[in-house]
Amino acid sequence: MAFKTLSAKSAAALDKELMSTGAFSIDQLMELAGLSVSQAVYRLHPLSKGKKILVACGPGNNGGDGLVAARHLWHYNYQPTVYYPKQSKNELYQRLATQLKNLGVPFTEDFDGALKDTSHVVDAIFGFSFSGEVREPFPAVIKALKETTIPVTSVDAPSSWDIENGPPSEGPGKDFYPTALVSLTAPKPLAKFFHGRHFLGGRFVSPDIAQKYDLELPEYEGIDQIVELDPKTGQKLKL
Amino acid sequence: MAFKTLSAKSAAALDKELMSTGAFSIDQLMELAGLSVSQAVYRLHPLSKGKKILVACGPGNNGGDGLVAARHLWHYNYQPTVYYPKQSKNELYQRLATQLKNLGVPFTEDFDGALKDTSHVVDAIFGFSFSGEVREPFPAVIKALKETTIPVTSVDAPSSWDIENGPPSEGPGKDFYPTALVSLTAPKPLAKFFHGRHFLGGRFVSPDIAQKYDLELPEYEGIDQIVELDPKTGQKLKL
Repeated sequence: MAFKTLSAKSAAALDKELMSTGAFSIDQLMELAGLSVSQAVYRLHPLSKGKKILVACGPGNNGGDGLVAARHLWHYNYQPTVYYPKQSKNELYQRLATQLKNLGVPFTEDFDGALKDTSHVVDAIFGFSFSGEVREPFPAVIKALKETTIPVTSVDAPSSWDIENGPPSEGPGKDFYPTALVSLTAPKPLAKFFHGRHFLGGRFVSPDIAQKYDLELPEYEGIDQIVELDPKTGQKLKL
Repeated sequence: MAFKTLSAKSAAALDKELMSTGAFSIDQLMELAGLSVSQAVYRLHPLSKGKKILVACGPGNNGGDGLVAARHLWHYNYQPTVYYPKQSKNELYQRLATQLKNLGVPFTEDFDGALKDTSHVVDAIFGFSFSGEVREPFPAVIKALKETTIPVTSVDAPSSWDIENGPPSEGPGKDFYPTALVSLTAPKPLAKFFHGRHFLGGRFVSPDIAQKYDLELPEYEGIDQIVELDPKTGQKLKL
């Protein structure tokens, strides 16, 4: 019953393999990843708890997952607002942003202002490829996420946590413990240091790839794109 | 309370618009369309009714939706078999087929044999761009779908039906009435002639596009990617 996790290096290799021998496009994978995130938010924070969701997106793939999640949340009748201060020139992310603008989803540059007017935050700032320093303008954002009483759901990693070693001992992410974590494809080592609600998403891994990367994928229920894990063991949560 | 539908010509224009001003890629749209189909099959035919699903795929986009649906059905623990006799050189469809092969999903060339060993059929042969004659090898396939007592779910159109005028008065599709229809984006005119269970899928249309194409999109529930319609009115089914 070891808590099985996927290192940052292995996660990068697995993603690469999904797009080579796996024959997936990044568009497909990001659509399904973002869909998983949106389903976790719906589970954690049903519409009755408040419609306003602030989605904070970083410059890379984690931010792209956030953009997709924001779109699905809009379709579920939430009122997402997107904070996306470092918009990439990457064509896919630009298209994902346009898809949101076409729905009238507001983009804000005022994170603190938006945080005062939301009922849930999706932290899609940094994912498993994060390492090193938190660059501007994100230190203040992570500090605000740490200090807020509004629930925060982090995508793949609480932003600024070390992927292998978890919560940082200094910097803006010191003592940042979000409410929930959505691990995509498989939990990363940092998940062992996380004690909130933990979901797994990304229902697209083949048994061959799971075996190659020594993953123990839990059984999803029905048509769900997420499955809740026991935060202590990383196994499927027994209800 | 008119039964609003989208002509073949308008459906083609709408798809084009989703990929131009809408900024969607075909990969994204097909993923969400196929996901909708898989959810309709799950609703119509829960696992307890039998795990074996035969997915018949045509050479175009309708077949692509079927390939995506088959993959999701596999992840839901069904045992799909794919009949895909006219495999396109299109790179996307080839990738979708590889994704299935990587899951060990069997591809068969023996439609009649597979039909004897299945509990449900997905008809993803022809969609809204169909017109004219049914080409080989599909006349015998459509005849078999007409004659079987196994439930058949058609994607966007019962294959060989005229998109505007519905059931053909001659040819293999004469008197072919599948069990269920999954309309993608919006029902096509043929839906007025269809009296089985009717689902709408494709939860990605913006209000602007809906208005431009004079669509009345029903409200989806929760995180569902499908909504059941009243086959008589095309409005959301009142439960």
